[in-house]
Amino acid sequence: MQQAAIGLGVNLRVLAQRPDDPAALVMPGTMIGDHDDLDVLRKFADGCDVLTFDHEHVPTDYLHELEAAGVAVRPGPDALVHAQDKGKMRQKLTELGLPCPAWALVATRDDLADFGAAVGFPYVLKATRGGYDGRGVWVVDDLAEAEDVLAGAAERGVTLLAEAKVPFVRELSAQVARSPHGQAAAYPVVESLQIDGICREVYVPAPGLPESAALEAQRVALTIAKELGVTGMLAVEMFQTPDGEVLINELAMRPHNSGHWSMDGAVTGQFEQHLRAVLDLPLGEVRPVAPVVVMANVLGLDLPEVYPAYKHVMAHDPGVKVHMYGKGVKPGRKIGHVNVLGTTVGDAVERARHAAAYLRGEIDE
Amino acid sequence: MQQAAIGLGVNLRVLAQRPDDPAALVMPGTMIGDHDDLDVLRKFADGCDVLTFDHEHVPTDYLHELEAAGVAVRPGPDALVHAQDKGKMRQKLTELGLPCPAWALVATRDDLADFGAAVGFPYVLKATRGGYDGRGVWVVDDLAEAEDVLAGAAERGVTLLAEAKVPFVRELSAQVARSPHGQAAAYPVVESLQIDGICREVYVPAPGLPESAALEAQRVALTIAKELGVTGMLAVEMFQTPDGEVLINELAMRPHNSGHWSMDGAVTGQFEQHLRAVLDLPLGEVRPVAPVVVMANVLGLDLPEVYPAYKHVMAHDPGVKVHMYGKGVKPGRKIGHVNVLGTTVGDAVERARHAAAYLRGEIDE
Repeated sequence: MQQAAIGLGVNLRVLAQRPDDPAALVMPGTMIGDHDDLDVLRKFADGCDVLTFDHEHVPTDYLHELEAAGVAVRPGPDALVHAQDKGKMRQKLTELGLPCPAWALVATRDDLADFGAAVGFPYVLKATRGGYDGRGVWVVDDLAEAEDVLAGAAERGVTLLAEAKVPFVRELSAQVARSPHGQAAAYPVVESLQIDGICREVYVPAPGLPESAALEAQRVALTIAKELGVTGMLAVEMFQTPDGEVLINELAMRPHNSGHWSMDGAVTGQFEQHLRAVLDLPLGEVRPVAPVVVMANVLGLDLPEVYPAYKHVMAHDPGVKVHMYGKGVKPGRKIGHVNVLGTTVGDAVERARHAAAYLRGEIDE
Repeated sequence: MQQAAIGLGVNLRVLAQRPDDPAALVMPGTMIGDHDDLDVLRKFADGCDVLTFDHEHVPTDYLHELEAAGVAVRPGPDALVHAQDKGKMRQKLTELGLPCPAWALVATRDDLADFGAAVGFPYVLKATRGGYDGRGVWVVDDLAEAEDVLAGAAERGVTLLAEAKVPFVRELSAQVARSPHGQAAAYPVVESLQIDGICREVYVPAPGLPESAALEAQRVALTIAKELGVTGMLAVEMFQTPDGEVLINELAMRPHNSGHWSMDGAVTGQFEQHLRAVLDLPLGEVRPVAPVVVMANVLGLDLPEVYPAYKHVMAHDPGVKVHMYGKGVKPGRKIGHVNVLGTTVGDAVERARHAAAYLRGEIDE
């Protein structure tokens, strides 16, 4: 976001947990502290015109306290809670008549069995907030497995949400921006390729998506932004079912991995758009600047240092846009991404995939 | 340059004269000190992989000292001196057979008279380095005026260069990048509109420029980059004469005002390209992402604060890209610029001009 803030001449300050957090490395005046400490939050907010987020983990109650003290929190806690708590998200979206997989909050063995009877096994259990043992999502094949998850969750005070396992042909993401006075803008709907639950690639616009389906996905995202009172960027991750319908999977109220393509591929990138939205400035044009844009994440693998790989990647393809986050390399960690502007999906995917694979050390020749 | 450095995951440090210099406001670890103090330069260079510049004012001798001490200075002093000293520039370009206006170093009344006899009055006098009374260029109408300038210069130890006043139809700029191992890339040749010696607008590509003339301008710039051993970005400002030829006006060995369009308008912006070049990374694609790109400078005028004007500018035209530098507003000072991607020159110029005029306070409705 600092790149966009520099362009706009907007002074960005960050609350970081550690001095070597990526954001802290690229801007002055960083405050080091915990985002779940109300005193730290109060001190940080002092002198800020607007407070915004790059993750969902600031406790909702603390955000209410800050709002009560006059801080402009954007998105506000009444909106953000729907990105923090999957149970509240499902309740609200269902109230609004928006398309969700079958779901239920489950607290007992009977709840688990009833849900299994209704949708069949396997189904999905999710922690409504956080998770345990480093996980927040479990696919359970039968009642016994479901009971194990429930027992583990109960021990730790974690509430569970059950969802039908949707048979989908692909995942889509609809991103919109909305400002406090209600202006909204919808980016093209994109397809995201997830492997083991991690976003690997994004194709813009979603290849072969009929206009009616794209408009419906955008309508869903705009409705959510409006009805939940979102300010800033909203990403609505969706499943596309075999019969072409879309079902809402997750919400994120911040710039999102599925929108990184826009940093090079749209007239207004999502980080600039987020700043414009939370500052209540008019929103920017969302038009892509190429017929096809492809983003590929760089996941840490073998290379301890990515920089030496630049020479090959940049020589091989002078059009690849490299974005590295200044994070230490750990296997599986998102440490950067590449964007490619192209004319055909096949060509752009091949170029982005090669660059990302080389940067992570998957290709050694 | 910090925006590009963030994208590449490259750690940029700046030597600034004051803590509120624009660059110091957007990156951590700024060192405050004078660029004409060798001890400061040595201390700053310690630990840098590469030293580069955003102006030409670091004394050539000090750069030689740093190079001798093993610092990678890019561009090096043997190249940079041609952007620092207009006399050396003219000598070298003439040796290389590159097209310059008629010129002479002038130190006496006879020199001034001889040059007037050769090219006629009015002609142009320039300080080879710096200037005096806040000026470095004088147009003299007759010998008496020329003598006045010479007397003032002599008093201050300033060397003068005389140049024919070129009758030109417009000004062009050819930007190229060159890396230490010799790779080079040429951006499209652009037209720049100068008013009172200050760049106001840039049109990309230069409208109506025949391909042969564009290729010739690029050849000139690539030749200069190679023969002078330039590393990083080089801008060659040129006059286009009524018969379609180009004559070299000035050189800049850094990202340049005539290349700001590329920040939004090319696959690789000039700041990223400069970093790639001085780091000896392969250069990026220079292709524009729109048929027409127009840049308009925002010059300080009446508004003490530009930010309140954002609402109008962004609402009026969501496609305008605003770049503000975090400088205090002073009349005539370049405090920012806007870029517009378009399909026709007329439309893009009108959009960029409106936005720049509104940001500076020239339009109040």
